[in-house]
Amino acid sequence: MTHEPIKTRVVGVDIQIDNTTLAVIDVRGNILARKEFATGTNPNIGDFSSVLSQHVVSLVEENGGYESIRSLGICCSSSNFMTGCIENAPNLPWKGVVPLAAMMRDRLGLAVALGNNAHARGLGELAFGVAHGMKDFVLLTLGGGVGSSIFINGQYYFGRDGFAGEIGHSCAKDNGRLCGCGNKGCLEMYCSKKGIILTAQEVMAERSEPSKMRQTEALTPEVIVSFCEMGDELAIETMRRTGEMLGISLANYASIINPEAFIFTGSVAHAGDWLLEPAWESFNAHVFRNIEGKVKFLPSHFDESEANLLGASVLAWNVKEYSLFK
Amino acid sequence: MTHEPIKTRVVGVDIQIDNTTLAVIDVRGNILARKEFATGTNPNIGDFSSVLSQHVVSLVEENGGYESIRSLGICCSSSNFMTGCIENAPNLPWKGVVPLAAMMRDRLGLAVALGNNAHARGLGELAFGVAHGMKDFVLLTLGGGVGSSIFINGQYYFGRDGFAGEIGHSCAKDNGRLCGCGNKGCLEMYCSKKGIILTAQEVMAERSEPSKMRQTEALTPEVIVSFCEMGDELAIETMRRTGEMLGISLANYASIINPEAFIFTGSVAHAGDWLLEPAWESFNAHVFRNIEGKVKFLPSHFDESEANLLGASVLAWNVKEYSLFK
Repeated sequence: MTHEPIKTRVVGVDIQIDNTTLAVIDVRGNILARKEFATGTNPNIGDFSSVLSQHVVSLVEENGGYESIRSLGICCSSSNFMTGCIENAPNLPWKGVVPLAAMMRDRLGLAVALGNNAHARGLGELAFGVAHGMKDFVLLTLGGGVGSSIFINGQYYFGRDGFAGEIGHSCAKDNGRLCGCGNKGCLEMYCSKKGIILTAQEVMAERSEPSKMRQTEALTPEVIVSFCEMGDELAIETMRRTGEMLGISLANYASIINPEAFIFTGSVAHAGDWLLEPAWESFNAHVFRNIEGKVKFLPSHFDESEANLLGASVLAWNVKEYSLFK
Repeated sequence: MTHEPIKTRVVGVDIQIDNTTLAVIDVRGNILARKEFATGTNPNIGDFSSVLSQHVVSLVEENGGYESIRSLGICCSSSNFMTGCIENAPNLPWKGVVPLAAMMRDRLGLAVALGNNAHARGLGELAFGVAHGMKDFVLLTLGGGVGSSIFINGQYYFGRDGFAGEIGHSCAKDNGRLCGCGNKGCLEMYCSKKGIILTAQEVMAERSEPSKMRQTEALTPEVIVSFCEMGDELAIETMRRTGEMLGISLANYASIINPEAFIFTGSVAHAGDWLLEPAWESFNAHVFRNIEGKVKFLPSHFDESEANLLGASVLAWNVKEYSLFK
């Protein structure tokens, strides 16, 4: 019997290019309080971590107090759970290797875990989402990039160097579109936001029918999907080609690791059946016959603004509790 | 302190379409005695298991006796380690699901494990071969078919339905050659024995140079490799294309599971650098940049006639010892 207060809450942090969101979250994934601030362009990570610490302290003090908080979890692109560092993030102001977990632990006296988006979202789906109760599944993030995380026997799988799941940079088309990584034909160049826009341009150039896409200056996947809903043929063809490419890559993924399900998350995943129907068709036409029809395709039920926070909260539960006196 | 004799040997069995080989093998992978008999075309698995049992008994009695044998391991295509059954083998005389492990256990009073070729060979490489000391690697079998087995944290990975590793039926070329599985463009149609012959025919049809391949009636990968050694341009081109296809598929494999090494085994793998050099080049041109150059390509050191037997012996060590009286 211990007389210490039972700690039933954690703080989840979601660092994005524009904004950073933090929230107090309980063991059941209820978001009890949240706030947001501009991530800023300050290249000094020390300043950023001080500002983040102040926001954590004030949010926590207004919502249940410090003694109810067990630990802190941070979801951020290019983060390495094993080292607690943000490593060479191409889209964030902090260059090189940044030991953010240790910096936040020292400022707050809390245990801190750090993980990338696909890792955090996978944990979130396992704890509170559509992967609940699953042992072997793959989470796909479709947005500005294409990422994935693999869960094996209920555990996140890192791979030998921590790079498992990099389906975004698997080759979907030999000698295809040039990717920012330097390779050609990466899946990310077909199924991310920018990939879908490139496909839309290709479809418009190849075909002569009228399309609302032709009159739209700032084309986005969301806009294309809204045109699909109106029956725009070229918009539908754009999403069909996107789904077809996705389906072949997922078939090869599944033929290798034989998961129970693929879970789709990220802004592009909200295209729903316009994307997932052609992906499912192409998947089953290409996957190893013995698992054809056996792998589930499941869209996440999470709100896009909550998925990273919930994942960050599970990261927080995954670190040992920290105490200066133990 | 036990007074039972210490059991330092197992029996390994390798069932092939033509011949079945069995051997007494010690804990260090030394093959102490072996014999071979025709597998036969008898559709009655009861007869086959009786014949196999008699051979096991006589081999063991002539070589150290029954009390030195701990267990029996069987390597056979289409075998399921989890059920101990051969399941719907397309190339063996026994149809449907055959509980061979249980049948042999009942006849011999020994614990029996059954596994497929890629599974057994992977275990063999881990215990006695080039994978010794590795945690995360992939074994490729290149022969009549293309198979693979995945080891994660030193353990064989089954996948959700036991079908993990089916790279032979991943799609290497969209809308490519029709495979026996019903899908198009499976890697097996490019990198197995039959795939290489098809590529050789393609190369001969496309190009007009003379080639020793044109005068050869029964073309095999071994013959093509011998022509490569003589500087035959079309033979070299055949293996180059084969390696290029293999490299792309392995790049996608590695981008997903991030292994330490690929280990190559099977008759086609003996093509050596004629295959592995172009595969390595194509692999590194297509793999996720962060692991480029990090994944090892290792040919097995085992003699082709011993690889399955050694793997079968490790399968045998992987089952619990069996006793009628416990």
